[in-house]
Order: sequence, then C-alpha cells, then structure tokens
Amino acid sequence: MSPSSSAEDSSSPAVITCKAAVAWGAGEPLVMEEVELSPPHPHEIRIKVFSSSLCRSDISAWESQLLQAIFPRIFGHEASGIVESIGEGVTEFREGDHVLTVFTGECRTCRQCTSGKSNVCQVLGLERRGVMHSDQKTRFSIKGKPVFHYCAVSSFSEYTVVHSGCAVKVSPNAPLEKICLLSCGVAAGLGAAWNVAAVSEGSTVVIFGLGTVGLSVAQGARLKGASRIIGVDTNPDKCEKAKAFGVTEFINPNVILLNFLSQVIKRITDGGADYSFECIGDTGMITTALQSCCDGWGLTVTLGVPKVKPEMSAHYGLLLTGRTLKGTIFGGWKPKSDLPSLVDMYMNKEIEVDKFITHDLPFEDINTAFSLMREGKCLRCVIHMPR
Amino acid sequence: MSPSSSAEDSSSPAVITCKAAVAWGAGEPLVMEEVELSPPHPHEIRIKVFSSSLCRSDISAWESQLLQAIFPRIFGHEASGIVESIGEGVTEFREGDHVLTVFTGECRTCRQCTSGKSNVCQVLGLERRGVMHSDQKTRFSIKGKPVFHYCAVSSFSEYTVVHSGCAVKVSPNAPLEKICLLSCGVAAGLGAAWNVAAVSEGSTVVIFGLGTVGLSVAQGARLKGASRIIGVDTNPDKCEKAKAFGVTEFINPNVILLNFLSQVIKRITDGGADYSFECIGDTGMITTALQSCCDGWGLTVTLGVPKVKPEMSAHYGLLLTGRTLKGTIFGGWKPKSDLPSLVDMYMNKEIEVDKFITHDLPFEDINTAFSLMREGKCLRCVIHMPR
Repeated sequence: MSPSSSAEDSSSPAVITCKAAVAWGAGEPLVMEEVELSPPHPHEIRIKVFSSSLCRSDISAWESQLLQAIFPRIFGHEASGIVESIGEGVTEFREGDHVLTVFTGECRTCRQCTSGKSNVCQVLGLERRGVMHSDQKTRFSIKGKPVFHYCAVSSFSEYTVVHSGCAVKVSPNAPLEKICLLSCGVAAGLGAAWNVAAVSEGSTVVIFGLGTVGLSVAQGARLKGASRIIGVDTNPDKCEKAKAFGVTEFINPNVILLNFLSQVIKRITDGGADYSFECIGDTGMITTALQSCCDGWGLTVTLGVPKVKPEMSAHYGLLLTGRTLKGTIFGGWKPKSDLPSLVDMYMNKEIEVDKFITHDLPFEDINTAFSLMREGKCLRCVIHMPR
Repeated sequence: MSPSSSAEDSSSPAVITCKAAVAWGAGEPLVMEEVELSPPHPHEIRIKVFSSSLCRSDISAWESQLLQAIFPRIFGHEASGIVESIGEGVTEFREGDHVLTVFTGECRTCRQCTSGKSNVCQVLGLERRGVMHSDQKTRFSIKGKPVFHYCAVSSFSEYTVVHSGCAVKVSPNAPLEKICLLSCGVAAGLGAAWNVAAVSEGSTVVIFGLGTVGLSVAQGARLKGASRIIGVDTNPDKCEKAKAFGVTEFINPNVILLNFLSQVIKRITDGGADYSFECIGDTGMITTALQSCCDGWGLTVTLGVPKVKPEMSAHYGLLLTGRTLKGTIFGGWKPKSDLPSLVDMYMNKEIEVDKFITHDLPFEDINTAFSLMREGKCLRCVIHMPR
C-alpha cells in the first residue's frame, strides 16, 4: 500500500494504491501492477488479503475459452483476509475482523436465502461480469481506467473491496494462511458429499477428477463411512496421492478405453456405484458419470465448471432407469451460515485442509502457481501476500 | 379361444388359439388374427385379458421411429385380466385371480428389488426385445412362426402369457374395466408426484404435456396440496379438460414463442416453479423444463419416453444453480408391493381413474383407439375384450 494512502484511518477510508496481479489478456502472464482501490461503498468492506489459493476456475476464466473475456482483470476468489475498512451501513464487520471471501454471496433476505433449502442467493449470486453489485462499476483502476473484478472477490491483490455479503467472519484463532482453502474448493467438495449427495455409510462412490474438489469429495465420503471410493484421473501421479484423502481404488482412463470406463466401474461395483461426482468440468463426462451409477437410486452430482463445452447431454434411458443428476454450487453451503462451522471443524481436526496445500508461494511468484495448476502439478498453491 | 383348446383344464394347460390384434409392420393398422398361445412355462401365468387401455408408449413402439422395429408383434401393456392357468412353480397366483399386468416386473430378490429404494428390477425390468425372460422366445405364434411380445405383456390379445413377476393380484371387487389404467399411465403420474418429486404443500408445479400421465401428475400434485399447477400443452382443448384434474393455469406454447415459454413461467412464478414434469416424451423440452424451475431446489422429473431423439441435453449452468434432473419409470412404484394399495385407494375414492377414460371400445375397434391417440383426441381409450 502506498505511504500516501489513508487506509489506516478507518473513519474516512480513502483511495489506496496497492500491488495487484493484473491479467491484461486471455492466458497472458499476470503483471504485478500498482492499482488504485477505492474505499468501500455502502454495504461493502475493504479487505487486506492475507492468503489466496489458486482454484481451477481462476485458470478457466483467465483462459476465457468458454467464459466471456473481460480484461484487464484481477483474478482470485479463494482467500482469507482482515477487514481494513467498512462502508456505510455495514454492521456485521469491524476493522480487524478475520474473514474468508466467498464467490457466491448470501444476502439473507431473498427468496433463496430465506428458503432454508438453497445457497443460490438471488442478489449476490455468482457475479461474472467483473463489476460490483451496487453500481455495476469496478473499485480497481489503473490511472483512472477500470480494472475488472472476478467472482466478486479479486483476491490476487494486496487489498480488495467486496460486498459485505461476500465475506464471512471467522474465528481469529484460525490460521488465515490455511483456511483460505475453505473459501471454495475444499468446502465445495465436502458439501457435495454431505449436503448434496448425503453419502451414506457403506456406500460406493466414484469420483471423476482428483483435483482439490474431487479429493475433498473423497474426504467427505470417507468421513460419512463410504466403503469404496473409486477415483478416476488421467494423471497417474494421483494414484498414490489420492489414498491420503480416502480414495480406495484408482482408475486411469488412459489405460483403458474411455468407452469401457463405465463398464469397468459397473463390473467392479456389481451394477454401478451409489454416487458419482463429476469434478473435472468436462460436460462430456456426464454420460460416463451417470452410466457408472446404478439403476434405481444412482445419483450423479456435477461440481466441475466446464472449460469448453457448456452443454451436457445424456441418453434419456439413464434417467428412465431411476438415476438423478444434481447440480450444485459451493457444495450447497450457505456461506455466512455455514462457513464458520467448517472453520471450527478444521480447528478441531475433524476435517483435513493442510494436506491439500502442495505449494506455498510469495505473491510475486503468482505466475508459477498458474503454471503448476495448468500442468496439473499441484493441488492447492497458496499465494501469500506481503505481511 | 378355439373350442378345441384345453385352457379350461388348468392341471395341464395346452396351447390355445385366440384372437389377437397383430401389428405386422411399423405404423400399419393392426390385423385381427388367430394366434396360438403356448401354455405358461415355469414361473409364468396365462391371463384372460379383461380390458386393456391404450398408452402412448404402445403407439411409439408401433411407429418404431426410435425403438427397434420388431414385427410381427402384439402391443398392449396397460391391462387387467383373470388368471387362466399357471406354470410350474407359481405359488402366488391361482386360476381366477384378478390381476393387473405390469410392464416392468418385480422379482423380489435382486439387488434392486431388495434395496428398499428402487423399482427397477434387474431380472424383470423393462423388456423391449419382445421375448419372454426365461428362454428368450415368444409364446405367441401364427402357423408356427413367432409373434413377438411387447413390454413383457402383450395385452391386445384375448389371452396372454406373462412372467409371474409381471402381474399383480388385486382385489376381486375392483372393476377390471377401469383399474387397467393403474397398470401404467395413471399410476406413473401419481408416483412421479408422490414418490419421485414428493410434491410439498403450497408448492408450484409445471407440467409439460397434459396427456393421461401429465394429468395424473396434476392429480397427484393437487392431492399433496400444491397451490399452483401450471399445465403446458399445444392442444387448446386440454385447457378446459385439465381443470378437472387440478391444473390451475394453462399455457399453450403455440401462442407464445417457445423460446419465451420458460421466461413466461419464471415470470409468473417469481423465479421458477418448485417442480416441473416432462410428460411429453420430447427430450428437447428438458432444457425448458429445467429453466422453468427455480434456482436452488428446482426439480425436474422426466416421465416421457422420447418418440424421436433419445439424447437429452441442457446447459450446465442450469445444474450449477442447484437444479436436479430426476428420471423415473412407473413413478417409482414397486408393482407387486404398491399396486394393490393404489387399487384400494381407487375403491375408496381417494384417487380418480374413471375421468381419464374418454372412450370405451370393443376389441375389434382397436385401430380406432390408435387413431384417436395419434390425433390427440382421447385420454385413455379402454379396449374391452369379448366377455
């Protein structure tokens, strides 16, 4: 943050300048820039980012193969931080509060938030246009020109501004450099197993894609007593790594013909698994995931955000025989209502987070994290801001 | 039945000859033929068909646009009858028992039947090859040449042979000329609303396709206290008819652009219905059905058997925002376990069946029933066998 800023003076927060990793074009290396960050508007908070882990969705949006190319932009959404200042009307947060950012908010007043059965906030749900909710503008700029947000968070910056509904206060005792993972991937996987599928004891689970989300599904399934957890990934290195998260059997679809993959799974599971999870973000795998489930009660949960083809398809016969296809965002968790308890579970060693962290990198090495993720050489790279 | 037969002598049932409406080719008018029908093999029963209603699936299979063309064949699967003779090892039935046929059986021993959560029998599930389970042969023939079965039932015949797992004993007091409708369509719709969707009180429901199945979904939803039941059908005559079954609002997609259909439904339901049901058998409507449901907990149930395109597709975003797509066969009912109670509910006037019967026709007029159904001029035509 520039010495001229008045960010320390919370009574009247001013524009600050700080370092941010700016993406200027699709797939181009991020450039560390000095950006201006406006004070939080009403119902917004400004956060000093502590740590931010890199999620596959950041890469997909940066590559912009499927999603609209919006540049210049600051990516990052899986983050922890400390409230630096608050905007008018914010009563839930105070300066110094420890927070997790959330890419899908919770307004607590809309039909969805008050339904008791949804986490898809109608007001602060997934924001992909790169602007803030209240005025459809950016808070970041470089020499007066807007720099767009990502998923209402933009945590690859020393400071960021988010809507107060897109942050969650957590215990000040929790290590911010670890719990950032609960802001997206790890929570999404656990929630898919617990909230969406409600994996039952003794059941059989198949997971397509053993990244952080898939392995977190495995962890969730194991904690619910699933007896078999079959992991499918084209990366042979995942075979050993996956065991630590509960995967009991590993299949590399590159060593059998893809067309036979579901047949093999059906064979070894006596007709199909109870649950399958599509965590690759490949809509072409939906059919295989459905086929790998059993007739009658087989449930396929899709978690992956497609990188290329947004249309999924399947033969109707897979449904006719009693299968269910269920989608989810953020594992069904309502961020404000549920995330603090997940952090507590981590503190009580009831769930695993640290094992997902394969790399710790200083902010200036953020492009290394992007390379590692693209090459499938990491689970989570945690990017640490200068303290 | 020919006078020379020994069908009356149940101790040693012999081949009988009887009249059957035989389909000789796709879409060709049925021809009333004398067919030979072998005695029931072990674990089979021979039934004197009483009444058989015409279901849209009979038409689809007869037209064979999508399903394999298997001819000559005897269609019909939604039927009632009286057991005429039993094969070896049959202990559940006796001559004279009143039964409903079922197109998807229940063996009571397989993983599915014993799961307590499925009606998709692994042994006697949907049989589409036109042959009997035990020996993959037909029981019908004309001058020694096989005539194929349909859906393990083939009720457009004075007599038929079915596996004992594909019939259900019902109360002898129930009127066979009415309850045949519970053998497929009416039960399927009720079950989709009750077992598959578990429609809740005060909820909003959209039904695509107001044939017998769709209107039965409406009946089921109304009985569970749904507050709004929106029916969608291109046939304007359905508007008035549908009200009798609980439909509260009617939309004819021909008078608004199909692309706007889901937008209209979302608008009038404040963001989408709680449940939508695809009862047309048009995989192209799956997207509209999903779009018509709300984020978060919207559930789309598919009941229709596609007439043309077997692949369904949808944008992944519809799932990401928390929707569920669920398939079902026979509304989730386990035929042997559940059908007798449905018959009892009918007898106690708890469910409506008679209103679905728009035409009663003698067996010899079966082609009229096919025409009426093809032209959308009936709900159920009940075809009555000579008494």
